[in-house]
Amino acid sequence: MATDHAVVFTPSGKRGRVTTGTTILTAARQMGVDLDSVCGGRSICGRCQVEPMEGEFSKHELTSSNAHLSEFTKTELEFDAKKGLDPKRRLGCVAEICGDILLDVPPESQVHRQVVRKLVEVDNLVIDPVLVLRYVEVRQGSMEDPSGDSERLLEALTEQWDLTGISLSPAMVGEVQAALRAGKWSVTVAVRDGAEVVAVWPGFHEDAFGVAIDVGSTTIAGHLCDLASGEALASAGRANPQIRFGEDLMSRVSYVMINPDGAVALTTAVREALAELIDELAAGAGVGVDNVLELTIVGNPVMHHLLLGYDSQPLGEAPFALATDRAIQIPARELDLRTHHNAQVYVLPCIAGHVGADTAGAILSESPHKDSPVMLLVDIGTNAEVVLGNQDRLLAASSPTGPAFEGAQISSGQRAAPGAIERVRIDKDTLESKFKVIGCDLWSDDPDFSDAISDIGITGICGSGIIEAVAEMFLAKVITSDGRIVDHLSNRVVADDRTFQYLLSDGDRKIYVTQNDVRAIQLAKAALYAGGRLLMDHLGVDQVDQIRLAGAFGSHIDATYAMVLGLIPDCDSSQVTSAGNAAGAGAMIALLNRASRAEIEEVVRKVEKIETAIEPAFQTHFVEAMALPHLTASFPNLSKKIILPEPTQPVATRRRRRRDTQENT
Amino acid sequence: MATDHAVVFTPSGKRGRVTTGTTILTAARQMGVDLDSVCGGRSICGRCQVEPMEGEFSKHELTSSNAHLSEFTKTELEFDAKKGLDPKRRLGCVAEICGDILLDVPPESQVHRQVVRKLVEVDNLVIDPVLVLRYVEVRQGSMEDPSGDSERLLEALTEQWDLTGISLSPAMVGEVQAALRAGKWSVTVAVRDGAEVVAVWPGFHEDAFGVAIDVGSTTIAGHLCDLASGEALASAGRANPQIRFGEDLMSRVSYVMINPDGAVALTTAVREALAELIDELAAGAGVGVDNVLELTIVGNPVMHHLLLGYDSQPLGEAPFALATDRAIQIPARELDLRTHHNAQVYVLPCIAGHVGADTAGAILSESPHKDSPVMLLVDIGTNAEVVLGNQDRLLAASSPTGPAFEGAQISSGQRAAPGAIERVRIDKDTLESKFKVIGCDLWSDDPDFSDAISDIGITGICGSGIIEAVAEMFLAKVITSDGRIVDHLSNRVVADDRTFQYLLSDGDRKIYVTQNDVRAIQLAKAALYAGGRLLMDHLGVDQVDQIRLAGAFGSHIDATYAMVLGLIPDCDSSQVTSAGNAAGAGAMIALLNRASRAEIEEVVRKVEKIETAIEPAFQTHFVEAMALPHLTASFPNLSKKIILPEPTQPVATRRRRRRDTQENT
Repeated sequence: MATDHAVVFTPSGKRGRVTTGTTILTAARQMGVDLDSVCGGRSICGRCQVEPMEGEFSKHELTSSNAHLSEFTKTELEFDAKKGLDPKRRLGCVAEICGDILLDVPPESQVHRQVVRKLVEVDNLVIDPVLVLRYVEVRQGSMEDPSGDSERLLEALTEQWDLTGISLSPAMVGEVQAALRAGKWSVTVAVRDGAEVVAVWPGFHEDAFGVAIDVGSTTIAGHLCDLASGEALASAGRANPQIRFGEDLMSRVSYVMINPDGAVALTTAVREALAELIDELAAGAGVGVDNVLELTIVGNPVMHHLLLGYDSQPLGEAPFALATDRAIQIPARELDLRTHHNAQVYVLPCIAGHVGADTAGAILSESPHKDSPVMLLVDIGTNAEVVLGNQDRLLAASSPTGPAFEGAQISSGQRAAPGAIERVRIDKDTLESKFKVIGCDLWSDDPDFSDAISDIGITGICGSGIIEAVAEMFLAKVITSDGRIVDHLSNRVVADDRTFQYLLSDGDRKIYVTQNDVRAIQLAKAALYAGGRLLMDHLGVDQVDQIRLAGAFGSHIDATYAMVLGLIPDCDSSQVTSAGNAAGAGAMIALLNRASRAEIEEVVRKVEKIETAIEPAFQTHFVEAMALPHLTASFPNLSKKIILPEPTQPVATRRRRRRDTQENT
Repeated sequence: MATDHAVVFTPSGKRGRVTTGTTILTAARQMGVDLDSVCGGRSICGRCQVEPMEGEFSKHELTSSNAHLSEFTKTELEFDAKKGLDPKRRLGCVAEICGDILLDVPPESQVHRQVVRKLVEVDNLVIDPVLVLRYVEVRQGSMEDPSGDSERLLEALTEQWDLTGISLSPAMVGEVQAALRAGKWSVTVAVRDGAEVVAVWPGFHEDAFGVAIDVGSTTIAGHLCDLASGEALASAGRANPQIRFGEDLMSRVSYVMINPDGAVALTTAVREALAELIDELAAGAGVGVDNVLELTIVGNPVMHHLLLGYDSQPLGEAPFALATDRAIQIPARELDLRTHHNAQVYVLPCIAGHVGADTAGAILSESPHKDSPVMLLVDIGTNAEVVLGNQDRLLAASSPTGPAFEGAQISSGQRAAPGAIERVRIDKDTLESKFKVIGCDLWSDDPDFSDAISDIGITGICGSGIIEAVAEMFLAKVITSDGRIVDHLSNRVVADDRTFQYLLSDGDRKIYVTQNDVRAIQLAKAALYAGGRLLMDHLGVDQVDQIRLAGAFGSHIDATYAMVLGLIPDCDSSQVTSAGNAAGAGAMIALLNRASRAEIEEVVRKVEKIETAIEPAFQTHFVEAMALPHLTASFPNLSKKIILPEPTQPVATRRRRRRDTQENT
C-alpha cells in the first residue's frame, strides 16, 4: 500500500497527495482548500464537515469511498449525539485519509461560501464578514516566563490561527484575563478586521450576529444575520419616531434650528428606535443581543447626521456641507445601542449634502461601477437621488422632487398603507375608472370587491396610485400634454372652482384627482427627469442601458407608467427594473463582506457629485420636462407597447440581479 | 544691492541664501532650522521670535544688525501691545530679510528645545511631546465641492502643516463641525502622534498641558507640564487612599480576594485620588483641567492592575501572571479622570509580576541601556526591584525585602514623616547616641534641639534611620557580625526578655532598636543584596560600575551605611548615587518625549526577567548575606573610609545625571 494518497476536493477541484493518517482538515489546509473551522481542529465547532464521494473520478484517476478514510471516531459519535452529524459526512479534523479519495466540501463548510439571500434581496454575495470567531488554547504563564495573559493569547492566535499584529484594547486585556481563567485557558475570541480582538468568551463560543439597518425618514428597517453563514435570521421595521418632530426631513432640520434641545431630542429618538429594533430582531431570531457584534447603517444625510449626533442645520442651507463624507466606524455603545459592549457600527459614507449613505448603499447593491452598461439608478423618497454611469465613470445628484411621490401635497394622497389606491385604469372611451387598493387583490370592478375591502376601506391614493392615475388620465385624454384637465361632459370630470377634477372613486369617501394634484406630479416628475437628464448631459449620453428603481416607491411603480409620465428617460422597458430596498441591501452587503466597505468608500470618493441647484441646464430640463411626453417622438420603444391588455406585473416581484449574475426568474 | 542675502541661524549654525523680502520663518523652514510656530505664520502665536545679532560674524562673512531686516511692522506692534515682545526680538513670520544677517533662535522658539527640569529631576530632555497644537484656516464648503467639513480640515492640515494620513474619531467629526463655524473657519487642533486630531478649538488656542503621575502604594505624586515648553508648572502628591484597605500591596490583594466588591472599591479609590490630584495640579498651575490633554502613569504591577481595573489576584500567587506586559494607551475618561474629554493616558509597560511600570520608568530615567558602564539600579519600596546591566544586556528582578525598609516590622518604625529619626550616630566608646529627626536640621546633642523639635516630637524611626542605627550599632560593636545584640554594661544596652535592645532615644517616648528589629533589617538587606548578586551572577560580573538608588528610601539612605550593612554590593562610593523618584521621572520623560515610549517598550521587551523564587542561587546568596560584612574582606573600597569625622551628605542632594550628560554640580 502506498504511503501517500491522491486527494481531490470538490467543488474547488484542488488536488494533491498526502501521507496516510493525514486528517482531511490538514490536507485541505495544505492544498489551500476553503474548509471552515472555528475551533482550529479540536472537534468542537463541526464547521469542517465534508462528504466523501462514491464512484469513479475523472479519467479513472481514483475510485473513492468512505473506506479510504479512517474508521468513524468516538469524537464524531459524540459530536453526532450532541449536535447531529449527517451519516454521509465526516468531521474533517478527525477523519484521516488512508487511501485515494474524492471529498466534497458542502457550502456550509466553506469559509467564503456564496449564499442566496432569502430575506434580503442580495444574491451571490461572498460571505466574508469583518468579524470572525477563533477558538484558542492558551498556555498558562509560568515563573520562568513572566509574559502577560494577553501576550500569551496573541501568541496562541499566531501559532494556532496564523494571526499576527493583533491588538487588544485596554479594557479587552481585563476581559481576556478573566475569560482565560474562567475557560481554563481555552477561550473563543472575536477578531475584527484581522487586526483586533474585540470580544472574548471562556471556552468554545459560536454565536456571532450582525445587524444591517436602513434608517429612513419614515421607516427604520433592519435585518439580523448569522455572521458566519450569512443567513438572515430576522427582519423587522418600525416607524421613525422622529416623525413627531416633523413629517419630512427639512421640517426636522427646522425643528433643530428653532428648538435649543431639538437636536438632542431627535438624536435620542432615532437611537432609541434603533435600540428597540435590535431588541426586536434579536428576540425574533431567538438570540441574545450581547451576541450582536457588528452593525452596518445606511441613511440619508439628515438621518445620518441626527443619528451620529452631528449638527443637521448645515444640511438645511447652502452649501449643504456634510460634517464628513467618509465612512464612520463607531462603537455601538456610543450610539446607545444595546448589543455586545464592543460591537462596532459601520456607517456607509454620505456622498454629498443631499446624497446620503443610503445612496451609497444602493450603489453598493446595484453595482453600476462594476459593469459596462450605463445604469440610471433612481432612489425616490422625499427627494430623488439619481446615480448614473458605469465602471468608467459615475455621477450622482439629488433631484428636488418634493414629497408628491410619497402622497404628500396630493389632495387625497397618503402613504402606501392598506386602503390606499395603488393601481388605476381608466377606460379610454367611457372614462370610467377601476383601481386596486393596498391590502386587496381584486380590482374595484370585481363583484366581490366591496366585500373584500369592507375592513380596509378606500382611504386615499399612494405614490404609485397617483402616478398611474395621472398617466391613465393622460392616455384617456382627460389631461392635455401641458397637464391641464379638460372638461369631457362626463360625470367623472367635474368642475372644481375654475378648474376641473377627475372623480377616481365615488364610494362613501369620494376621491378626486385635482388640477393641483396633476401640477404637483408634473413638478415632481419634471424634477426627477431633469436630474437624470442632467447627469446624462454630464456623462455625454442620450440613452441609458438600464434603469433601476430603488426604494419603496420605486418597487411599486409600474415602469411603463413611469415612462408614460416621463419620470425617467426612455429605455428598453425590459431593462427598467425594481431594485427593491437597494440601500438596505447595501448595508447587508457591507455587513457580510468586508471588502465591500473599501469598495464603496473608493466609489464614493470617485463619484462625481452634481449639484442641480447651480446647474443652469437643470432648469432647462426641468421646464421642458413639465409637459407630458409626445409618445412617438420621445418614446420610440414605449409607443408600441403603451396600451396593455392587462396590467403589467409590478416590477417589485421581479428578481433583482447583483453584479455579474443573470436574472434567474 | 544683491537680490539675495546670506542668512545664518544660531545656535544651529545653519546657513543659506534667500531673496529680499523672504520672511525669517520662511527662511528657517527652507534651511531646516528648528523655529517653532503654532499659528503657521499668521502672527498669532508669537512662537517664532528671533533675535537679530549685532557684530561681525566669523571670518568677516557678514556683519549683521536689525537694519538688515524690514521695518518693525504694525503686526509686531500689536503683538507687543497684546502679549509683549522683547525690543531685541522680531516675529519671524513678518520680519523680512533685506540684507545679510545672523539670527539667533532663542531656546523658547525652538520646537525641539532642550530644557533643564526644575521641579522634576530630568535633565537634558528633548521636548517632543506626542501631542502638538496646530492652527489652521479651513476653506468653506461650496455647492461646487460638496466635501465634508472634516475632509476640508484635513486638507488644510496637509496644505498648511504638511500633515497627512490624519484621522478623526466619529465624535471629533461633530466637534470639528461646530468649531469650524464658531471659529469662522479658523480652528486650532491638537494632533496626537502625528496621526489623529484629538481636540479642536475655534480660532487660536495655545494651552496644552500634560500630567505625569507615579502611583505608589503609599503616595501618588504628579507633575503638570506645559506640553509645548516642557516647563513643569505644578507638582503635588497625596496619600494613596487604598491604604485604608491594606497598608501593603499584598494585603490589598487579599482584600480583593476576600471581598466581592473589593476590586471595584480599590479601583474607584485610586482613580478618584488621581482625579483629585489632577484637579489640584491644574488649580496649582492656574490652568483648566480641560486643557490637560495627555497623561503618563507609572506604578507597580498591583497599582497598575487596580488602576486599570484588571484583576490583581493573579499577582498574589504563583506564577504571578500580569494581565499584560505591554504599554497601555487608554482614554482618560475610561479611568474616570477629569481632563479634556479626549485626553489619553499612556501607562508604561510592566516588566513582570513583581517588576512594574515604575521600574520601567526608572529604567527610562536612568538609562542603563544607553551606556557601557554596568549599572545596578535599585528601587526600594515594600519590595525592592533591582535592574542590572548596560547597553548590551539588561536584567531585572524583584527582591522580597518586605516592608522593613519602610519602617514596617520595626518596633518603633514609622514612615518618613516629621518626627521620625532619620540619621543616627553612636559613639564607639560611650555607646551614646545622637540623631536627627525629619523636620529639624539640628542633631539631638545640639543645645537648641529640644526647643527646635518641641512641635514635632520624636515619634519613631524611619527606613533610613534604622539603617544607620543598625550600621552604627555594628560599627560600635553593639551588634556582632551575625546580628546579635550583645550586652555592654552600658545603660544604652538593656535587657529585653532573653535578648538585649539598644536605647536610641530616652526622651518622653523611649525609642529602642530591638533584637527583632535587627533581624528584620538583616532579612531585608539580605534579600536586597541577594537579588542584586543573583543578577550579577546572570550577567557574569563580580563588580558593578555604578549603583543608583531610586525611590524615597533610596534618596535618603546614606550610601556608605548601605554598604556597611551590605544592602548593595561593593562599589566605588562616588559611583553610588541617588536616583530620586526615578519612576516619576520616567513618567515625565514619556510625557514630554514621544520617542521615549517606543524606547522603553523595546527595552522592556528585551530585558531578561529573573524570578528569584525559582533560582536556587538566590537562597544561597540570601543566607550568606544575612551576616554583617567583614569589612576588610568584602569592602576593600569601603574599609578606608568607614569612619567619617562628620556625617556624609545625603546622596539625595546630589544632582543626578541622565544619559550622556555629565553631572554639573
